[in-house]
Amino acid sequence: AVPPFIGDQNAAAPSTVPMVMRFGFPGMENLRYREDHVLSYDRRFKTAHWVCEHFTKAKLSARNAERSDYEFMEDEADHPFHRATNKDYRGSGFDRGHLAAAGNHKVSGNAMRDTFYLSNMSPQVGKGFNRDYWAFLEDHCRKLAKSFKNVYVITGPLYLPQQEADGKKYVKFQVIGANNVAVPTHFFKTILKEDDSNHISIESYILPNQPIADDTPLSNFAVPLSAIEKASGFLFFEKMPDKYNYGQIKG
Amino acid sequence: AVPPFIGDQNAAAPSTVPMVMRFGFPGMENLRYREDHVLSYDRRFKTAHWVCEHFTKAKLSARNAERSDYEFMEDEADHPFHRATNKDYRGSGFDRGHLAAAGNHKVSGNAMRDTFYLSNMSPQVGKGFNRDYWAFLEDHCRKLAKSFKNVYVITGPLYLPQQEADGKKYVKFQVIGANNVAVPTHFFKTILKEDDSNHISIESYILPNQPIADDTPLSNFAVPLSAIEKASGFLFFEKMPDKYNYGQIKG
Ligand SMILES: [Mg+2]
Ligand SMILES: [Mg+2]
Repeated sequence: AVPPFIGDQNAAAPSTVPMVMRFGFPGMENLRYREDHVLSYDRRFKTAHWVCEHFTKAKLSARNAERSDYEFMEDEADHPFHRATNKDYRGSGFDRGHLAAAGNHKVSGNAMRDTFYLSNMSPQVGKGFNRDYWAFLEDHCRKLAKSFKNVYVITGPLYLPQQEADGKKYVKFQVIGANNVAVPTHFFKTILKEDDSNHISIESYILPNQPIADDTPLSNFAVPLSAIEKASGFLFFEKMPDKYNYGQIKG
Repeated sequence: AVPPFIGDQNAAAPSTVPMVMRFGFPGMENLRYREDHVLSYDRRFKTAHWVCEHFTKAKLSARNAERSDYEFMEDEADHPFHRATNKDYRGSGFDRGHLAAAGNHKVSGNAMRDTFYLSNMSPQVGKGFNRDYWAFLEDHCRKLAKSFKNVYVITGPLYLPQQEADGKKYVKFQVIGANNVAVPTHFFKTILKEDDSNHISIESYILPNQPIADDTPLSNFAVPLSAIEKASGFLFFEKMPDKYNYGQIKG
């Protein structure tokens, strides 16, 4: 069963949104302000456009929620025409892969619960990807919060073209279930790190939604941020000072 | 050359937006308020999400602009990462197909000029589609304005899945040029007609981006509005009274 909302809905709790979105919104479509992340929903492809998270060492060391207490749930903010359901995933062979990982949000029951909306899931290859290499990347992001005072992570699906034998470029991806939930060809993560001297650095990755051998260096998947911006249709970290003078972003 | 802006930019001209959008916005992403149409831009696929137009008999009988006076132009409202260019289309084999047709906007030079932004174009098959069957559908819409006092037309691209030999459903479409402008698999038009007694009726179509024989009945392509809403991720005519009691929309 879905755990109830914890706490007093009328209490004036400080919102995490200004901190999570400190470096700007990648887009403004169908926004969902969650307890500890912010999500933009893609009604056409029935998964997220992007998910923004903010990590600190203190937040990630909290152990106030257990993953096993929560279940995947439909996002009733979406019209039924545009909503992914558990049934869509059933028998598809794909995992319901968290974009904002449950393990990043142990700070409170509500924060973890909010990661279980199906709007925060994409169909991911399970073995070798969601349960393995992608999970290592999630862990890599969490570890960064040990050496940086603020870490901002943006995660999302991509639908990338490939050249075929006829010399033309095609985008091709599977869709699952009655609602045609899109199976992304790739996923991106872009990570903005701020150190104690307020110096900012960025690392960005595009990974194929496929089994990846454990010993593959993460650097194999490093890309300039602009590669993600061009393919996704979003612009990231627009509020970063001197963004367009920053080497990795010029791309 | 691109004709200059006509008229006094500081004059308080009445906006057509409230009338064009009278039955609601299908979505709110990257809106462009044009002289005589409203467009939502898809930065990922480098073409429009949807275009809304409003026809009356009077407006369509105007002859204040000539198509040959205008040229296709990049939409500088888009970041260069997300902008379609004339070069993307060159040599692709596809037409720069207007979504808001130039022929619908002879009411003024600015109204026609505004249809020539590449954000209002999709790659369309030329012979048998853009220049033929699709143009007949555009003409069908204009003719409706002779018998209805208000006609609202929403047009846009679709990327529809097909079942393949392995029993799974895939979306597959070509992309063209350095900016990977998406070639839609299909296009939709949904048309809301209001008669002199304020009675509302709707007709909706999905056409493949392929040559279609001239003598194919338009009714072959009729669909319930909900089919377009599910596939596109948009909701149309939400401000229509009793929308959800209206047979065609229940779908
Ligand atoms: Mg996972
Ligand atoms: Mg045309």
